[in-house]
Amino acid sequence: MRTALVIGTGLIGTSVALALSGRGVRVHLEDRDPDAPRTAAALGAGTEEPASEPVDLAVVAVPPAFIAPTVAAAQRRGAARGYVDVGSVKSGPRQELVALGGDLASYLGTHPLSGRERSGPLAATADLFEGRPWALTPTPETDTEVLNLALELVALCRAVPVVMDAEAHDRAVALVSHAPQLVSSLLAARLEDAEESAVRLCGQGIRDVTRIAASDPGMWVDILAANPGPVADVLAEVAADLDETVRALRALQAADEAKREHGAAAVGDVLRRGNAGRVRVPGKHGAAPAVYETVAVPISDQPGELARIFAEAGRAGVNVEDVRIEHATGQQAGLVQLMVDPAAVPSLVAALRQHGWSIRP
Amino acid sequence: MRTALVIGTGLIGTSVALALSGRGVRVHLEDRDPDAPRTAAALGAGTEEPASEPVDLAVVAVPPAFIAPTVAAAQRRGAARGYVDVGSVKSGPRQELVALGGDLASYLGTHPLSGRERSGPLAATADLFEGRPWALTPTPETDTEVLNLALELVALCRAVPVVMDAEAHDRAVALVSHAPQLVSSLLAARLEDAEESAVRLCGQGIRDVTRIAASDPGMWVDILAANPGPVADVLAEVAADLDETVRALRALQAADEAKREHGAAAVGDVLRRGNAGRVRVPGKHGAAPAVYETVAVPISDQPGELARIFAEAGRAGVNVEDVRIEHATGQQAGLVQLMVDPAAVPSLVAALRQHGWSIRP
Repeated sequence: MRTALVIGTGLIGTSVALALSGRGVRVHLEDRDPDAPRTAAALGAGTEEPASEPVDLAVVAVPPAFIAPTVAAAQRRGAARGYVDVGSVKSGPRQELVALGGDLASYLGTHPLSGRERSGPLAATADLFEGRPWALTPTPETDTEVLNLALELVALCRAVPVVMDAEAHDRAVALVSHAPQLVSSLLAARLEDAEESAVRLCGQGIRDVTRIAASDPGMWVDILAANPGPVADVLAEVAADLDETVRALRALQAADEAKREHGAAAVGDVLRRGNAGRVRVPGKHGAAPAVYETVAVPISDQPGELARIFAEAGRAGVNVEDVRIEHATGQQAGLVQLMVDPAAVPSLVAALRQHGWSIRP
Repeated sequence: MRTALVIGTGLIGTSVALALSGRGVRVHLEDRDPDAPRTAAALGAGTEEPASEPVDLAVVAVPPAFIAPTVAAAQRRGAARGYVDVGSVKSGPRQELVALGGDLASYLGTHPLSGRERSGPLAATADLFEGRPWALTPTPETDTEVLNLALELVALCRAVPVVMDAEAHDRAVALVSHAPQLVSSLLAARLEDAEESAVRLCGQGIRDVTRIAASDPGMWVDILAANPGPVADVLAEVAADLDETVRALRALQAADEAKREHGAAAVGDVLRRGNAGRVRVPGKHGAAPAVYETVAVPISDQPGELARIFAEAGRAGVNVEDVRIEHATGQQAGLVQLMVDPAAVPSLVAALRQHGWSIRP
């Protein structure tokens, strides 16, 4: 790939352009807001000048509702040899492209899972996609040359290609991203009118479950509006299980012991199925869930405490895989939980103890 | 308080005993498993010898179903001046104590929110309750002397007392702990039979929402069985909102534009109510949610990298309030997100840049 055209220079488009420009591709930038390509060009993402001949690959990075008309228009003017979009849903835009008389041979729907919560060209970085999954949804009509151009794009962005069909993609993101967003929001919404003494009892569990409930409603309405069917299907299944769970809890209130036992069994079943689902969530390295051991170290809240702990770990040759700092309510002191390879626990504990740290059993 | 009796030497009982013993209280240990007090005593939690006269305070740390009979039996033999339990539900045990003819003047129901996920005396620590909320549920019948003994217990354990009535307590933990557990489990359960390509698209959002779905089903059935009504009430409200959300998503699939707009408005409403609920979750310092800014630093995965970053922060006088390490799928490299006071961002960024770190915008 020597030349590319990025249409839509928001966070994703500008990040793609930065990655391609950084690896020697000549990138032309377009946006319906004329200021946006200027900003992106100033960041080193490419040039505002139009291409004098068709580019190798056009990357359409616009909101879901505009993908099909933008691809169709670019195809009509012969802007590129191949066309990809990078939107978060894949089935609807392709159907719309067919309805608009677009060319399915030179088009491939793709979706980089960048996981960033910011937007706009100023938030863009060349390494936004490094190591992240990038879904590709080819069909039998897709030209092999276009698929290969898309794979080259993914490689230049240092992402990991995942090939799936468009409908499977949309069901997958409904399951692992869109439905979890709404479930988190629905639970957090229960706290809106809670008594002050109740929210004082919040712990780390509810903090984690409701973290993404802080997401931007406007952006999420756009995403959900482009994938409503698969999200509704997942949530309808959650709703059926939830109704069953409420019935099981009501049975636990019964005077009749057999009913209570039935309720306890049903609640236990939900919890065990949750265990079984949770182990399928990949760890941060993308492999099977990593099994780390936690070493817990109480600390005060002085600058440099964490540095000294990490320095000890580094000197002991121990790599800290993940870390969580747990502060106690109303206190400055806290607990650092270091997640490390189980084999590294003895040397880490010995090194920390030797330098005066206490370790929680 | 000079003397105490701890009945039930699991995680919570042994941790209370360790805290009291460490602060000079003579602690007697009892458990229906004779080995358990021996282990606790060996850890320095107190003595297995029975007390020769009534102690100042008896702390009953047994599963919810055994609280009332254990308190009543201890009262009948005149074991102490005051009796508290430390179970995770408060309303049922008191009602059972009344039914058993127990004395409500010398009894106070309490609940330390220790947030630990392990169990047994070997997991116990004297600082388990430090800075954590400890709910106290006095009634008009409660002796002031008993309330003061309980407040002394909370102070000796370095916890933060929160006074509320028993029913409000049970509704509060249903809202902030028991219902979130089941919601997390119900969402995770959807992943049990998901396709492998779907779970490859999991990101940090679903990882956070489903973290507590890994909890122990047996322990949670006991907790939920002791508080089924309030948990069912919260979940029934979530279920009503969820049904509404599914209907809104179905409306987003409609051909009719007015229906779609109605659906988008309803989905937006859920997301905005989630925002409003989420801001009520206290930050790790227990105050109003702290507003930190995030400084993101790409790192490789070599031992010592984090140490150097934290050392720079410490030297710049910047206190890192929280940290998250985000590893890219299938890669060793990652991104460290440092959460700091907004006022500290410029000096942290300058210090890190000066020492060769790149900062993500």
